Amino acid sequence: MNRIALNMISLAFVVFTANAQSDLAQYVDPFIGVDGGGNVFPGACVPFGMVKVGPDCGNKDWNAGWDRDGNIHGFSNVHVSGTGGGCKYGNVLFAPITGELDTHNYSSPRKNENAALGLYEVELSRYNTSARLTALQHSAMHEYTFPAGDDSKIIIDLGSFLASHERQYFVGSEVRILSNTEIEGYTRIRGGWNIGEPYTVYFYAQFDTPAAEYGTWKSHKQMPGEKVQYDTNEMTGAYFTYHTQAGQKVTAKIGISYLSTGKARMNAAEMTSWDFDTVRGECVKQWEKILNKVVVKGTDEQKKIFYTALYHAYLQPVDKTGENSKWASDEPYYDDFYCIWDTFRATHPLFTLLTPTKQADMLRSLLDIYKHDGYMPDGRSGDDNGRVQGGSNSDILFADAYVKGLKGIDYELALEAMIKNAEVAPGDDERKEGRGGITDYNTKGYVSTRYERAGTRTMEYANCDYAIATLAKGLKKKDLAEKYLLRSHNWQNIWNPNIESLGFKGFIWPRLENGSWMNEDDYSVFQGGTWPDFLYETFSWEMSFYVPHDMKSLIEKCGGKEQFTRRLDTYFTHERWDQRWFMGLFQISNEPGFLTPTLYNYVGRPDRTAEIVRQTLRERYNSTKEGIPGNDDSGSMSAWYVFHSLGFYPNAGQNLYLISSPTFEEASIYLENGKTLLIKAKRASEKNIYVQSVKLNGEPLDDCFFRHTDIANGGILEFVMGSKPSKWGINGMINE
Amino acid sequence: MNRIALNMISLAFVVFTANAQSDLAQYVDPFIGVDGGGNVFPGACVPFGMVKVGPDCGNKDWNAGWDRDGNIHGFSNVHVSGTGGGCKYGNVLFAPITGELDTHNYSSPRKNENAALGLYEVELSRYNTSARLTALQHSAMHEYTFPAGDDSKIIIDLGSFLASHERQYFVGSEVRILSNTEIEGYTRIRGGWNIGEPYTVYFYAQFDTPAAEYGTWKSHKQMPGEKVQYDTNEMTGAYFTYHTQAGQKVTAKIGISYLSTGKARMNAAEMTSWDFDTVRGECVKQWEKILNKVVVKGTDEQKKIFYTALYHAYLQPVDKTGENSKWASDEPYYDDFYCIWDTFRATHPLFTLLTPTKQADMLRSLLDIYKHDGYMPDGRSGDDNGRVQGGSNSDILFADAYVKGLKGIDYELALEAMIKNAEVAPGDDERKEGRGGITDYNTKGYVSTRYERAGTRTMEYANCDYAIATLAKGLKKKDLAEKYLLRSHNWQNIWNPNIESLGFKGFIWPRLENGSWMNEDDYSVFQGGTWPDFLYETFSWEMSFYVPHDMKSLIEKCGGKEQFTRRLDTYFTHERWDQRWFMGLFQISNEPGFLTPTLYNYVGRPDRTAEIVRQTLRERYNSTKEGIPGNDDSGSMSAWYVFHSLGFYPNAGQNLYLISSPTFEEASIYLENGKTLLIKAKRASEKNIYVQSVKLNGEPLDDCFFRHTDIANGGILEFVMGSKPSKWGINGMINE
Repeated sequence: MNRIALNMISLAFVVFTANAQSDLAQYVDPFIGVDGGGNVFPGACVPFGMVKVGPDCGNKDWNAGWDRDGNIHGFSNVHVSGTGGGCKYGNVLFAPITGELDTHNYSSPRKNENAALGLYEVELSRYNTSARLTALQHSAMHEYTFPAGDDSKIIIDLGSFLASHERQYFVGSEVRILSNTEIEGYTRIRGGWNIGEPYTVYFYAQFDTPAAEYGTWKSHKQMPGEKVQYDTNEMTGAYFTYHTQAGQKVTAKIGISYLSTGKARMNAAEMTSWDFDTVRGECVKQWEKILNKVVVKGTDEQKKIFYTALYHAYLQPVDKTGENSKWASDEPYYDDFYCIWDTFRATHPLFTLLTPTKQADMLRSLLDIYKHDGYMPDGRSGDDNGRVQGGSNSDILFADAYVKGLKGIDYELALEAMIKNAEVAPGDDERKEGRGGITDYNTKGYVSTRYERAGTRTMEYANCDYAIATLAKGLKKKDLAEKYLLRSHNWQNIWNPNIESLGFKGFIWPRLENGSWMNEDDYSVFQGGTWPDFLYETFSWEMSFYVPHDMKSLIEKCGGKEQFTRRLDTYFTHERWDQRWFMGLFQISNEPGFLTPTLYNYVGRPDRTAEIVRQTLRERYNSTKEGIPGNDDSGSMSAWYVFHSLGFYPNAGQNLYLISSPTFEEASIYLENGKTLLIKAKRASEKNIYVQSVKLNGEPLDDCFFRHTDIANGGILEFVMGSKPSKWGINGMINE
Repeated sequence: MNRIALNMISLAFVVFTANAQSDLAQYVDPFIGVDGGGNVFPGACVPFGMVKVGPDCGNKDWNAGWDRDGNIHGFSNVHVSGTGGGCKYGNVLFAPITGELDTHNYSSPRKNENAALGLYEVELSRYNTSARLTALQHSAMHEYTFPAGDDSKIIIDLGSFLASHERQYFVGSEVRILSNTEIEGYTRIRGGWNIGEPYTVYFYAQFDTPAAEYGTWKSHKQMPGEKVQYDTNEMTGAYFTYHTQAGQKVTAKIGISYLSTGKARMNAAEMTSWDFDTVRGECVKQWEKILNKVVVKGTDEQKKIFYTALYHAYLQPVDKTGENSKWASDEPYYDDFYCIWDTFRATHPLFTLLTPTKQADMLRSLLDIYKHDGYMPDGRSGDDNGRVQGGSNSDILFADAYVKGLKGIDYELALEAMIKNAEVAPGDDERKEGRGGITDYNTKGYVSTRYERAGTRTMEYANCDYAIATLAKGLKKKDLAEKYLLRSHNWQNIWNPNIESLGFKGFIWPRLENGSWMNEDDYSVFQGGTWPDFLYETFSWEMSFYVPHDMKSLIEKCGGKEQFTRRLDTYFTHERWDQRWFMGLFQISNEPGFLTPTLYNYVGRPDRTAEIVRQTLRERYNSTKEGIPGNDDSGSMSAWYVFHSLGFYPNAGQNLYLISSPTFEEASIYLENGKTLLIKAKRASEKNIYVQSVKLNGEPLDDCFFRHTDIANGGILEFVMGSKPSKWGINGMINE
């Protein structure tokens, strides 16, 4: 990384925003979390960038294209970051090669792979070529360096795409060479993780160097000199041949569009310079605006993890405003919600805190999707809804926005969309959108085992119903508010008081259609599950803590404060409960456990919250390629890190931050309204993790929580930290 | 028409098929049924042609584009025929104008409008220009004639489309002038009658005359000399200006594609000649192949109505093989099923009889849609399922195909798709696909009034279940066959024996969720309904006859043969039952009554079948613009006419033709397998409508029905007709 970091510092043209206090770009390392299941995208893009240009490696079955070991095929222009499930995108692949082209196999081993903010670079040892990549919102710049020779080639493969299980399928492609410096075309693909409708990635590319020769291919049949391959549902491609001197560079501006080749051409024009560093500088500048929202005092290592986490949180969803091929609208348009079940908990609350206008834009986009596609998405990609993991968790986003005072949102329409989620069964396929199994939920009060993910659904629906009640109450719709508040207690209908585990009684448990419980000996419910199981990406021990909206009742069900605290202690300390899968009961790597460490706050034990959070930050995050504890899930893991590093964490859907343990002695959050929230944490260190006292704007804050509305206009939050638990916060808290 | 007919005869290059016995093209009058609700498309196309080029008139809110009175805006290249509901298509509009262009209003009154097979022609009096249009499968030829002047223009409006209620919405467009003779681009539209996903109509056009000038526009802002308007979700267009002498022609070849402009260019190349008459001759030739399948002896007026009806039956669905933008497949691909609820009764059985390979292709296409989109469609247009009117009536097509021995169909897959229809609830929106209300139907045995169209759904589902049983039985799946045979009796669950009307007891009646009947005084059930009502496009008197698969039980429920006959008599003779809406109880204008005239055969009264059928043919069909008794519904009304003119009618889904009353003394059906079915009807006339006797291949046929398998290998069917009812057929018939 050092070489890149040095390059960065020399970028004199980088203009910082008014808030900038340091060159924060240097702390972003796009390789953090690319491996070890993090699946983070290591290529170049701007915040929420539609274009994500990076390498596609190995068997092209890695979610972000990049793979530790495999050969590099080339550099495609659209990717996702941090996802699990099947692949999506990896379209419009370019590669610099030499010699005769084998369309079946042109991949190359790599050398000297590097990445920095707005830059990915690598050498392809098979060809002795190298590539530097950078990107703006709808365009990518590829700068290739060739050896001396008459057969240096840039290939454009429109038959390339990522594919694993839940796979993408090729539909069609077209290519048209316009001149010896210009080419356009598209790839059309269907399927992928969200089992989506076909999407078409159009491109237009311009090269700074005229090609000596060119040609195209279709279904691997090469046709030298042929300029056009029209769409016959076959794989096409093209190549430009150059006579190069050693070290000669050929640069391409590539515009990408989901509308047309014409729009792609206009998008390429957003790159006004042919100078790679200038374009990269523009990319970095956009990132600096985000990074400078939070300026922290810490070690370089701390900053590296922190700012890279912040960077990761802003990779998705993707701002496709002006690029909606499905309807014309003046509303913003975002895609690649991947999935809201992952991101409603930490990522979106982070947007609300740092970039509320962007968050409002996303919510407006969700409402526009509802108006045109019938449901707000949980997952959405390639302009199609798909993959509801748990609840209709977009509901939570609107409750969260409402209680935090987000402007510019049609909340009446939001309530309508949320009620549709709650009332209208999506039918086949219930994995696509809406609430699967609500026929049960709305009549029996729980989703019975005749539906998959019955446990996760019931628990999430209860929280989503609370979100509806929250918004309905705000909009003065008393009857609706009461109706959904009542429904929000439905989680209790799958609480089986007779189930016992590790000395604790009462767990959520599968319930049959006829109302009876599933066999009480069936401990698979404690083993974790996936799509077809009772619980999704969690197990009953963990999910039995997941009642973010009704903690008071949960604590009572668990036998009161003391017993609840002991249950939490067991959850966080019990090891190797299942030798096949779990090291500990608590795993931060999946979202259902995200809130659990802060539940200690509800029983007056913020010291335990601090311990668990600090341990997790320390042990599960680092600055290596394996530095993220699981699929980053569109920045979810990263947003969790960002919040807790600052010392608090949202209970999404509520006007509430739970205090954990600030890690920086000082952090300034530059709010969008021009105000600053200054967070001071006296004596904060790896040892001094316990809050001794807190002041908010000079007034003592005895509670272990505060409201978003308390800090929305800035202020000073002063912590005093120590190495021992204190009496601070011992009153705990109850639900609103 | 005469001028055109004379032109036709002079087309010396028309090569007839081996079976051709006369120039049948002359009998096709595309203007029959365009008005009076027929909504037939009067423009030019080939059989199942993807391109249907014709005028868009008036407020552009007529389903086929054409309107009796309004001005003509121009000539767009994609239309549907005979439909009701909201409009679809009307895309990529060309017009020949003169003088300054007003993009808001360039429509013109018309003069000398004419149409013939493969030809539409008209003069635009505002401009003193004229147009001749013809088409091949994926391309149209427009031949424009201009007056003398320096400002003759051809405009291409990519913002134009048809829109009424259930309307289409504009999404985007793009246009690119390639040279002074070439242009390409697209229009993207969503919605329309099937509330479909966006579809994109790409085009490429080449002119035989170089333009003197050209320009483009976006959102009505004209930009002379500007070649490209890229997609910004706005309406775009272009114009070519010519300096013309009086009477100078400019001809355009227009390729249309749903994939890309590149494919559109290839499609334009299917027109190998620039000579309009040559291209039109190719179009006519394709039609002659269809028309010559049936050669009848009759009066010119008879032939005109008959061959135009045959022509209308072959307008839809549309063969889009090679033009599927949603998946790559080697299977045939058909679109514009509009809707199968309309066409399964007569249109598809006609395809099975005359062009079984085409019918098999359509069924393969339905299965390919099932595989990729999850359900077989009832309605489908613009590559998206939408609008289930009654049952999942594609089920009937497969039973029909199976019992009639259609080859090349994966019947196991068909059964799977049919069972999905029957078992998996489509959820929101239940109008899109599958069976709405099956949660009720599969548990209670009927669709309760909590669902819309509960009556129509229950009745159609019962028949569809019979189709499943039929195929399951054929595939030796005994348990499945029994299950669905049992379910096929479900229609009895909404038969209310206590409802009395006009002296008859027992009618289908709305039933509530709790099992009780709707108020017995609610006679709205006898008034006809639409989407949200109990019965769709019918009323209880009519629908209480609709049990095509269980006639024996129905006759019993109605009190036996005598009483059933009296009930039919009342249905066919009672007049002005509801003065607001009905002239008679029986109206051929909607499909639920299609089979009813032949039900007399089931009780041994084929004489009454003959009377009703002949009366309907005589009184409700003619050769005028209002010559079709209702929306032609993708040729449904026309197919009904074709069958009954020949003297028999299918009970779709069963290996069964019911004999009515042949109108031609002789008709030869040239089957696809090379065999001929010769139908002779001695003494057949307007007076001699009663069958006196029948012989099939020389053997007496005493039954008033025969099997498809009896005539699939050709043969001779000899009727002797008379002016009085005879004893023939009095034994009636029972269900298989």
